[in-house]
Amino acid sequence: MNSQILRYRPEDLERYVECFLNKLGVPLPDAQTSARILVAADLRGISSHGVIRLHTYYGSRIQKGLIDPLTPLIPVYETAATATLDAGNGLGMVAASRAMERCIQMTRQANVAIVSVRNSNHFGIAGYYAMMALKENQIGISLTNAQPLVAPTYGRTAMLGTNPIAVAIPCAGRLPFVLDMATSIVPIGKITVHEKAGQPVPLGWGMDASGKMTENPSEILKGGALSPLGGSDILRGYKGYDLAVVVDILSGILSGSGFGVTTDPKGKPARIGHFFMAINIGAFRPLEDFKRDMAALMTELQNAPKAEGQTRIYLAGEKEFEQEAENRARGVPLLDEVVKGLDQAGREVGVPFELTAL
Amino acid sequence: MNSQILRYRPEDLERYVECFLNKLGVPLPDAQTSARILVAADLRGISSHGVIRLHTYYGSRIQKGLIDPLTPLIPVYETAATATLDAGNGLGMVAASRAMERCIQMTRQANVAIVSVRNSNHFGIAGYYAMMALKENQIGISLTNAQPLVAPTYGRTAMLGTNPIAVAIPCAGRLPFVLDMATSIVPIGKITVHEKAGQPVPLGWGMDASGKMTENPSEILKGGALSPLGGSDILRGYKGYDLAVVVDILSGILSGSGFGVTTDPKGKPARIGHFFMAINIGAFRPLEDFKRDMAALMTELQNAPKAEGQTRIYLAGEKEFEQEAENRARGVPLLDEVVKGLDQAGREVGVPFELTAL
Repeated sequence: MNSQILRYRPEDLERYVECFLNKLGVPLPDAQTSARILVAADLRGISSHGVIRLHTYYGSRIQKGLIDPLTPLIPVYETAATATLDAGNGLGMVAASRAMERCIQMTRQANVAIVSVRNSNHFGIAGYYAMMALKENQIGISLTNAQPLVAPTYGRTAMLGTNPIAVAIPCAGRLPFVLDMATSIVPIGKITVHEKAGQPVPLGWGMDASGKMTENPSEILKGGALSPLGGSDILRGYKGYDLAVVVDILSGILSGSGFGVTTDPKGKPARIGHFFMAINIGAFRPLEDFKRDMAALMTELQNAPKAEGQTRIYLAGEKEFEQEAENRARGVPLLDEVVKGLDQAGREVGVPFELTAL
Repeated sequence: MNSQILRYRPEDLERYVECFLNKLGVPLPDAQTSARILVAADLRGISSHGVIRLHTYYGSRIQKGLIDPLTPLIPVYETAATATLDAGNGLGMVAASRAMERCIQMTRQANVAIVSVRNSNHFGIAGYYAMMALKENQIGISLTNAQPLVAPTYGRTAMLGTNPIAVAIPCAGRLPFVLDMATSIVPIGKITVHEKAGQPVPLGWGMDASGKMTENPSEILKGGALSPLGGSDILRGYKGYDLAVVVDILSGILSGSGFGVTTDPKGKPARIGHFFMAINIGAFRPLEDFKRDMAALMTELQNAPKAEGQTRIYLAGEKEFEQEAENRARGVPLLDEVVKGLDQAGREVGVPFELTAL
């Protein structure tokens, strides 16, 4: 565990990802979009969804023909406030950002709109798309299903993805409220990190193959499953399970894509579905009044009395904005083993990772 | 704790609630609506939101002038797909059911609609309104904020309601999926029940006045607070906290009503806000395909391998539908002390509870 952290300019990382994907046949504008979204994850401190996935989630799948480098995004059904778009097994980031952009445009006229995407792939951080609505002072919502990793309450097999919920809401004179949460307690990457470090995980994060909660990360990874938010039945883990099902239905079933165990099967197109929604605040009350009340609520929560031993109450998205400010100033941190992996994949593709660390 | 259970015909209970509210000045159709929704809670086994609240949440507040027996529901802002309605401090059940009905009608044309309600009161079970959309084969969503009982993560004071999320989704050839969950681990009533029984609560459900998790129900009730879904930080309780904030924003702030600690202050109108949404499934893909996939997902989850010692995986709403079938057959169960309370309040109002138990 003597990993060294190297830091890079975000623009440099973006350019690298761009070249890498472009080399694999992704058109330049689409490669740029994907690069921006992957590096945004690293900037925001969600490195599990950042450039570390460039090869495993995207590059290698394009090479194997599991992801199409072109993302057509063809409308299947359309009304003034709704659309179902077919991503044609293209890149999730490209499909998602274009779908959300469309949703935002529709919301300008319709005041509330939903765009559903079928036949897509892993789209990076859900929060990115929800946040796109902020520029128009809309509320943005973004959901996606994903590869099964989470067991239903009283089950012991992974049936549902970590199906995230992201909501972005503007606020007057301060940072927006940005929730971006998996409906499992933790993502699978947290379990892997503990296994690598030879450390037990807190009881509740996951179960072994018999469905029993375990502190042993290897047992969770080998035939076990992640726990839904809430954990055990006594702490109402079925609520996290039910939320994961809602996200699966709105993302996978509403769009006509994969759902449940049929999502992201090994060696086949993932057939992931996304759900994007935007709300025009001004249709409900004057925007400035809404944003003023938002600021009041955020301040009220922040100033609430702290539990003994605690000094700060966080607002959704705050940690990520602070991380981003730091990473923009100091550079995006990557572990040297991640850099090695990028370079190795890059050499195979013909785009060696030759960036200079800061 | 030698409570006896008495059972009543749901029609009889409805008629009683109707007369009680009507006597207090609630117009007959509104009294009927409220009665249907309160008894629906008892039928579904959610007795904490049923007739037990007739006096405390509604009757006594009408008597004190804290709830207006008339519910005007005046449009403040309206578009083809959105509306903000002012409930004029009337009954929550009346405002909510009429607002959701409007939302469903709008969704027929607009394919997705949101109706926001301000200046309302406690509306009973959130799931009732979400389920109203099922008759049109729409997806129904219902949210509300409520009296502060839940502390934010790292806090120790109640700042947020148990702000529920309800989602109802139709399914082919089987019961619909009906999620109706508080964003806290448990409702406050669960703590009270444990206190009355002299039993400790599971660690995690709530905290004492210093913000420490406690098993002592009295410490939670006296100056402590409920925990958000997830519980402690290590199990990602901040996700439940953030979900409660989202519900508060969409219900209280979007509508221009109370929010955070300003919701339902003692001795003043509650200024509760609601959020209703409906989605026309047929706009996204053929309805029958959607409902077929829903049935497949429900079956898949139900048939998933069970954890050791478990025999059944539940689907959202299943327990409530089973409870309802039983209560329709055997009568709605009420504890004799609840009946006594109803009779006492009824005598004050001039409507004694003279129903014959089954």
